[in-house]
Amino acid sequence: MIGEIIAIGDELTSGRILNQTSNFAAYHLFAMGHEIVAMATIGDSPELIGSALKKALNRADFIIVTGGLGPTTDDLTTEAVARVLERPVTFHPEILAQIKHSSASRCKGKTPPKGVHLEKLAWLPAGAEALNPKGNMAGYVLVHEEKPIFFLPGVPREMQELLKNYVLPRLRKWPGRQHRQVRQRLYRVFGLPETEVNERVRHLEGDNSMVRIGYYPVFPEVHLSLTALGAGAAESEALLQVFDKRIKRALGAYIYGFDDETMASCVGTLLRREGKTAVVAESCTGGLIAHNITTVPGSSAYFLGGVVAYSNKLKMDILRVRPQTLERHGAVSAETATEMARGMRELSGADAALAVTGIAGPDGGSEEKPVGTVYFGSDYLGECRHYLHQFSGTRAQIQVIAAQTGLDILRRLLLQKA
Amino acid sequence: MIGEIIAIGDELTSGRILNQTSNFAAYHLFAMGHEIVAMATIGDSPELIGSALKKALNRADFIIVTGGLGPTTDDLTTEAVARVLERPVTFHPEILAQIKHSSASRCKGKTPPKGVHLEKLAWLPAGAEALNPKGNMAGYVLVHEEKPIFFLPGVPREMQELLKNYVLPRLRKWPGRQHRQVRQRLYRVFGLPETEVNERVRHLEGDNSMVRIGYYPVFPEVHLSLTALGAGAAESEALLQVFDKRIKRALGAYIYGFDDETMASCVGTLLRREGKTAVVAESCTGGLIAHNITTVPGSSAYFLGGVVAYSNKLKMDILRVRPQTLERHGAVSAETATEMARGMRELSGADAALAVTGIAGPDGGSEEKPVGTVYFGSDYLGECRHYLHQFSGTRAQIQVIAAQTGLDILRRLLLQKA
Repeated sequence: MIGEIIAIGDELTSGRILNQTSNFAAYHLFAMGHEIVAMATIGDSPELIGSALKKALNRADFIIVTGGLGPTTDDLTTEAVARVLERPVTFHPEILAQIKHSSASRCKGKTPPKGVHLEKLAWLPAGAEALNPKGNMAGYVLVHEEKPIFFLPGVPREMQELLKNYVLPRLRKWPGRQHRQVRQRLYRVFGLPETEVNERVRHLEGDNSMVRIGYYPVFPEVHLSLTALGAGAAESEALLQVFDKRIKRALGAYIYGFDDETMASCVGTLLRREGKTAVVAESCTGGLIAHNITTVPGSSAYFLGGVVAYSNKLKMDILRVRPQTLERHGAVSAETATEMARGMRELSGADAALAVTGIAGPDGGSEEKPVGTVYFGSDYLGECRHYLHQFSGTRAQIQVIAAQTGLDILRRLLLQKA
Repeated sequence: MIGEIIAIGDELTSGRILNQTSNFAAYHLFAMGHEIVAMATIGDSPELIGSALKKALNRADFIIVTGGLGPTTDDLTTEAVARVLERPVTFHPEILAQIKHSSASRCKGKTPPKGVHLEKLAWLPAGAEALNPKGNMAGYVLVHEEKPIFFLPGVPREMQELLKNYVLPRLRKWPGRQHRQVRQRLYRVFGLPETEVNERVRHLEGDNSMVRIGYYPVFPEVHLSLTALGAGAAESEALLQVFDKRIKRALGAYIYGFDDETMASCVGTLLRREGKTAVVAESCTGGLIAHNITTVPGSSAYFLGGVVAYSNKLKMDILRVRPQTLERHGAVSAETATEMARGMRELSGADAALAVTGIAGPDGGSEEKPVGTVYFGSDYLGECRHYLHQFSGTRAQIQVIAAQTGLDILRRLLLQKA
């Protein structure tokens, strides 16, 4: 089906808030096989809302409207809809009761702030149906000229929940639409430039209209999405399996994870599975690797800690890097990286240690070791290795890609040893 | 003036890419005193582009169009513009020469990839004028029915550069528009909830139409923008000074920095000014404080490093936290935080040490110390203090706000001692 998305709010047209809800809706609708003809963002003005709705009704099969549904006086969506579609608002006492009930349990007797009128949420245009009558979030659907118009809150979390749990399932069963069963998988790729990923996957999809392969860069990774749109669940599943194999063949170990996994969670899963512990010794990444690892809930089970040895003194005093190593090879060298890893592992008693030392810039580069030169060292149960990478970009980019590369080194090491 | 923003690209309507350029443009235009009537996002279709342009010409004084200007065959903006505005495209050899020149110096003899036609960039609709004829980026302005239409690339970096350096200055001088001199300042606020910031500043602006105060939450901070739109530079500057004082009076030391500063850069500035060095000892923030500090170029001048003591063993072995302290008070306690700070300072010889230990969740909380309980310790030249904070949110949010709070503690400590 052809859809249009309308986002409403002065906070969007003034640039105060970045509109992320339209993108979220577009992504999920496109993946389900719909086409989005246009996305409009307009201020809280009944005239603009009316004109956008009319235009959308002319060219789309369904419409998603977000924002302007709240309990304050500048939320004007319902009012505008009632006027332009000539559907007077009617009061739904059961909705008010439900909202008051859930609001009371959350706010524990606090009176609502000035300008908030909860009753407003219970007035819907004639024919509208609450999307989640048991919930506390505004949101309704209205079928006009046989086209469904979904009205959702502008708050991203609420909008996303209603879209996933109420809008997408309804559209899936909408009469007249081809009944397709959607199966999806996201592939997380690291270590290949976007152009190379493109080169490897662009012919995979062929002209199979029941399969969609999309890819998009999410620095420093590339994400690939596979969507199978079969006539039934079995067909979708079979298609997914076939194309899953092709994608894996094309990208191999550059795929580090799937769906909601992150590089750090994948490393964590491997460490858990092998019953091993890890530590890190960081210089140019300044704590970012440790931070990434510890974003994963439960990481204390396998991550003992790390040292950010920014100064040479700390490299020597804590990590026991030898003064003559620093003197002869410099702080940014394979030798220093290796000694940092070994020192960190010995100090902590962990099974695996990863070390990184490099030049994140913008200053500190030389002819021999330009900005972006990064050495990694690893010590896995006493076996030491080192790696040299040359990155480019801003200081922040070099730090991010160096941290991700370090985790990838740890991941590949654990895979080899498994 | 009233403006409209149109973003073009299938990658936007399919949700593959989040549209950030429209928000960027809206933010800067609004701050300059313009109103954005609508922002449209449409696919690479000449019909949709034509229809969006016509609608915008009907209701706006100027239009910003982004995307679809590239050298590949699916870039259709110029073609659509030529058709709908009845302005045949004409070839500009000087533009092609310039683009080839800068492209050659960047690509060093590589042939352009398949499907790339650089000549495309040199065909502009009749009457169009390149925005930056000396540059290598597509982008032009066309005055149609006395209204300027700016065409910019969709690549955020290029779009932002052209908007700031060419579009905004042109609009500032546009005939018929009130000649106002814009002066702006951004205030970065930390430690106050958004509602409290709102309460303190919402009456400051009064009904002075030459001043705009906007604020928006950027977790974990709140950013406040002050825009003065005087008739001349002197008036704008005077207005800025008056309202700057009012804002500072309303928010005091909760304003940690201005414009492009970050909490970490402000701490760095203070350390530099005082000629002091700092170290950190982190548990629940897992390296995030060290990472934030080291995002600042040149931070190695005052930051010696840190320890991420995730396990109790590392707390004892490296930071010399006493076993009986951990036993009696637990790893999450004022006593442990203080000993971590003291140990880290003594180990490193730094002037200031900050330590943090807490429960980031989702597990590990108790009745007595729920998730979000975070203790901070500081040791400044031998003088130790400790602080208790109770945060809420997800694991990631607690880590981010705890790291920011830690830096703020260091900042306030340095301010007191200065």
